[in-house]
Amino acid sequence: MATLKVPASVASPAEDCEQLRKAFTGWGTNEALIIQILAHRNAAQRKLIRETYAATYGEDLLKDLDSELSSDFQCVVLHWTLDPAERDAYLANEATKRLTCSNWVIMEVACTRSSFDLFKARQAYHARYKKSLEEDVAYHTTGDFRKLLVPLVSAFRYEGDEVNMMLAKSEAKILHEKISKKAYSDEELIRILTTRSKAQLNAALNQYNNQFGNAINKDLKADPKDEYLTLLRATIKCLTCPEKYFEKTLRLAINKLGTDEGALTRVVVTRAEVDMQRIKEEYHKRNSVPLERAIAGETTGDYEKMLLALIGHA
Amino acid sequence: MATLKVPASVASPAEDCEQLRKAFTGWGTNEALIIQILAHRNAAQRKLIRETYAATYGEDLLKDLDSELSSDFQCVVLHWTLDPAERDAYLANEATKRLTCSNWVIMEVACTRSSFDLFKARQAYHARYKKSLEEDVAYHTTGDFRKLLVPLVSAFRYEGDEVNMMLAKSEAKILHEKISKKAYSDEELIRILTTRSKAQLNAALNQYNNQFGNAINKDLKADPKDEYLTLLRATIKCLTCPEKYFEKTLRLAINKLGTDEGALTRVVVTRAEVDMQRIKEEYHKRNSVPLERAIAGETTGDYEKMLLALIGHA
Repeated sequence: MATLKVPASVASPAEDCEQLRKAFTGWGTNEALIIQILAHRNAAQRKLIRETYAATYGEDLLKDLDSELSSDFQCVVLHWTLDPAERDAYLANEATKRLTCSNWVIMEVACTRSSFDLFKARQAYHARYKKSLEEDVAYHTTGDFRKLLVPLVSAFRYEGDEVNMMLAKSEAKILHEKISKKAYSDEELIRILTTRSKAQLNAALNQYNNQFGNAINKDLKADPKDEYLTLLRATIKCLTCPEKYFEKTLRLAINKLGTDEGALTRVVVTRAEVDMQRIKEEYHKRNSVPLERAIAGETTGDYEKMLLALIGHA
Repeated sequence: MATLKVPASVASPAEDCEQLRKAFTGWGTNEALIIQILAHRNAAQRKLIRETYAATYGEDLLKDLDSELSSDFQCVVLHWTLDPAERDAYLANEATKRLTCSNWVIMEVACTRSSFDLFKARQAYHARYKKSLEEDVAYHTTGDFRKLLVPLVSAFRYEGDEVNMMLAKSEAKILHEKISKKAYSDEELIRILTTRSKAQLNAALNQYNNQFGNAINKDLKADPKDEYLTLLRATIKCLTCPEKYFEKTLRLAINKLGTDEGALTRVVVTRAEVDMQRIKEEYHKRNSVPLERAIAGETTGDYEKMLLALIGHA
């Protein structure tokens, strides 16, 4: 399901570090070499490279990348080189800051990671920011957004396949009742969405569809200006079919006048080692054009090359 | 700070298992031998004993203890032998069941464990109950209790000493404002109590005292029949001075007509390896009688012996 391509035989971390060091020296930076190495190493390998680099040169690889590269290419390489848990902590922290705030990104991190990966992001958040993720989310949000986002980032959902069908039926009914009354931030509705396992939630939503004739997100269709309702729909999508959520996020990022590089980078970097293959299939199906062609049409240079490498085209 | 006494030289897990096996066989059970072994092994050692026992005899030590022992003694030995994370999961699960429900125990587990120990309890909860702790707490509580307990059990508080004094001052003001209005389940008040690190919360409560002339729990003094308010006060106590909270819990358990063995067992078993020394000091100071004497006065037989061993008197 991942699109990351790691060569069958990989250079040692020491060799990779030496090559990267070479890429930084002399006239100009050798971006192609940086892509050739970093875009073809998995998270564990990148971690070793960072550790080896620090031990060998006494410097932080991320800092050197930061000073050698620029603009969107810099951004994608830095995000990619970070450990996934640190990256999630970073993304979530940026999303709680005033100038870069995004309820959307907070929700995405909370809902599309495995329970343990979300926990590792919370640990990385402690280490880096000397605060807890939920503390910042709670402090920087208000009203309905807080009611939804704080339990989402604090959840440690059960991940087994077991489903209680009686419960699914009764909770489908609760969801329908609340939605009929437009009580979108009702505490029972939020309880169900934020605490149930994804399997259990899925069963409840199937029951919803069976009993009431509509998919829940159809009943939640609403004014795109209602920001909370839009987030609520995206939450359900993330929890039940993340590849569709990411397809749409990529579509909007690519089709946007001027391209939303932030979103494009985020999705590619966070999903390349997870489910980018499925996302690509969804993208092609929905847009009648392969993702790599869409990305190539909207980006250029090393940024384009890095993105294409991460989605498996290099 | 622990009261558990482990001998300088401990028998091997295999030897311990052999002795325990002997204690179970023949006419009657050798309770003294069980106490001699289990009440003097730390959590890691008890875990090894359970594993060795299962590997050697193909049986679960807990099941054998369960069938050999009875009544309060059985209960304290079983609780003690469990791994702390499993024990917390068990205590919390019992506390969400209709017949044994206790908002008090849920709060105690959530507020007096370290952040990582609470997380380990949540993991143990998944493994044992195929559900998440927060899921059950949210499902089995309502209203103000749910608003407080769900974020408490979901928290992963930062544990560093860093304190933001500006924030402490502003949040002291928020707390005072809400309490003056008797808005005890206000979402800002709950946010502060459930997300801030214990150090940060303590700073805010010191500021509260400085700025408004009263300790917060004095301002929360109220009708003991108001169950939510009583729980809120206990929450603050657990977060800021757990030894006082546990002293009081022991005092009430011991002084109760008929003794509350459940609470007595729970506090002794969960704190013997943590801070029972401090709790004993608090108890002696507050009741003018040493805890061991108070326990000896209210309990008998093997149950008494086991409790006394765990609090360091054997």
